[in-house]
Amino acid sequence: MSACDTDPGPSQELVADVFARGCTSRATLEDIGSKWAQLALLALGEGGYRFNALRRRVEGVSEKMLSQTLQTLERDGLVTRDVVSAIPPRVEYALTPLGEQVAGRLRELADLLERSVPQVTAARAAYDSRG
Amino acid sequence: MSACDTDPGPSQELVADVFARGCTSRATLEDIGSKWAQLALLALGEGGYRFNALRRRVEGVSEKMLSQTLQTLERDGLVTRDVVSAIPPRVEYALTPLGEQVAGRLRELADLLERSVPQVTAARAAYDSRG
Repeated sequence: MSACDTDPGPSQELVADVFARGCTSRATLEDIGSKWAQLALLALGEGGYRFNALRRRVEGVSEKMLSQTLQTLERDGLVTRDVVSAIPPRVEYALTPLGEQVAGRLRELADLLERSVPQVTAARAAYDSRG
Repeated sequence: MSACDTDPGPSQELVADVFARGCTSRATLEDIGSKWAQLALLALGEGGYRFNALRRRVEGVSEKMLSQTLQTLERDGLVTRDVVSAIPPRVEYALTPLGEQVAGRLRELADLLERSVPQVTAARAAYDSRG
């Protein structure tokens, strides 16, 4: 069940399409694209984190926003949440195999943008000077 | 000028870091991640579009949101806006070379999510059934 609006292809299977309203892939792309989800996935791409450490890594996120973001990513099957029995109990977050794949692609995008800062900065200055 | 908060590396150059508040790369990642920006970049990855055709391709976007999204992407140097002299004049949007690179990476992410719809759907059902 893919919940996509696209017409069935010749195989009569529904074809997933991020452009189709109501397609799960479009909703997932939106979940991943949110500012905090992107950074949480990139951080978890570095390894597992406890909640508070993750919150420090994702600079500027509120406890509530990080918590909501992680719930969304867990529901989409990208992040696991494990309660480790200890005193006090610890909650640890990590990526699922699908989450690893998503985070890898986000890392490539982030690398490109980090390399492109001078270009983006110049484009912004040119745009702004046009008034 | 990269506007990043990170400490200068040994070379004394500022190092871009998407995790750093105030880093242009973090802001650009956020611009790109917005729902409509992702879809507009993916659409323009297929070729140039006039405004109204792009609006039809990015199903569900309002005129105002698409217009704001394109302005943001133009300012970041990812999209060009050309007014073609004709009667009536046409406005055409296309990707810059940097925009092509960004759109290519987004397309890889979208392909992954389109392939993963059954997995995400199953994960959501399992999560929701936990109540």
